Amino acid sequence: MTQPADPNRPMRFALDEAAAAAEAGEVPVGAVLVEAATGAVLARAHNRVEATGDPTAHAELLAIRRATAAVGGTRLAGCDLYVTLEPCAMCAGAIALARLRRLVFGAYDPKGGGVEHGARVFERPTCHHRPEVVGGVAETACRALLQAFFRERRG
Amino acid sequence: MTQPADPNRPMRFALDEAAAAAEAGEVPVGAVLVEAATGAVLARAHNRVEATGDPTAHAELLAIRRATAAVGGTRLAGCDLYVTLEPCAMCAGAIALARLRRLVFGAYDPKGGGVEHGARVFERPTCHHRPEVVGGVAETACRALLQAFFRERRG
Repeated sequence: MTQPADPNRPMRFALDEAAAAAEAGEVPVGAVLVEAATGAVLARAHNRVEATGDPTAHAELLAIRRATAAVGGTRLAGCDLYVTLEPCAMCAGAIALARLRRLVFGAYDPKGGGVEHGARVFERPTCHHRPEVVGGVAETACRALLQAFFRERRG
Repeated sequence: MTQPADPNRPMRFALDEAAAAAEAGEVPVGAVLVEAATGAVLARAHNRVEATGDPTAHAELLAIRRATAAVGGTRLAGCDLYVTLEPCAMCAGAIALARLRRLVFGAYDPKGGGVEHGARVFERPTCHHRPEVVGGVAETACRALLQAFFRERRG
């Protein structure tokens, strides 16, 4: 598989979402779900755990739920997810269930990630779909948002 | 920690939910979320992937979302989840995020489970909350529902 024309464009949207999360007092993680063939954005979302009181309201899960609602099916086989932080185990599991073609993420998350760290969900024989994974795209910008957020909170 | 007075009672409700899923043409998995101190049922849910077109609409995730909405917070620290099948990696991740006290499940799932198989989400250093886990409760009944469902589909 080849890289999309400009992998940074959807990641810029994901960064906008992450910034919106930070403004709302949420851990700044943003996600954008794109139809690979056309580049059309099917869904944008940011972390809304605090706003909703729902611990599963991570950016990735919200984007997947919105995109499947938009296309009217449970599978997003021709779609790519851009997210500013390495997904956790829950979100990695959801990505596999949605059969996403490719996962592009920004910052690596050694403490809570479930793709390149910890559960390494896609590497297990119990994982029935493994997307192509590209990590570290716009990593510095993605990480800077998170670091600024937690620095401010620690005050 | 001691076992609840009757771990089979909530599991019977979970089995009722699983049976309702099968009737609706969904993979028969049911879940019940209980406040441990009182035994009060906070949420019941069954798999609704087909009905909703949402690949994340597993019984566990729906029960967690309903229960957090009911209690008005993101954490279910004093609560136990009963589910008829070993949770997948996505649902195990959600269970950890919701800080559930105990997970009780029925049938083991060597092909898709994420607790005792595959990702083994709770055993990773990236997992920041590990519930007590009790597997194999009402296992025969839980597995029988799943087997009947898939036998009929293949038939």
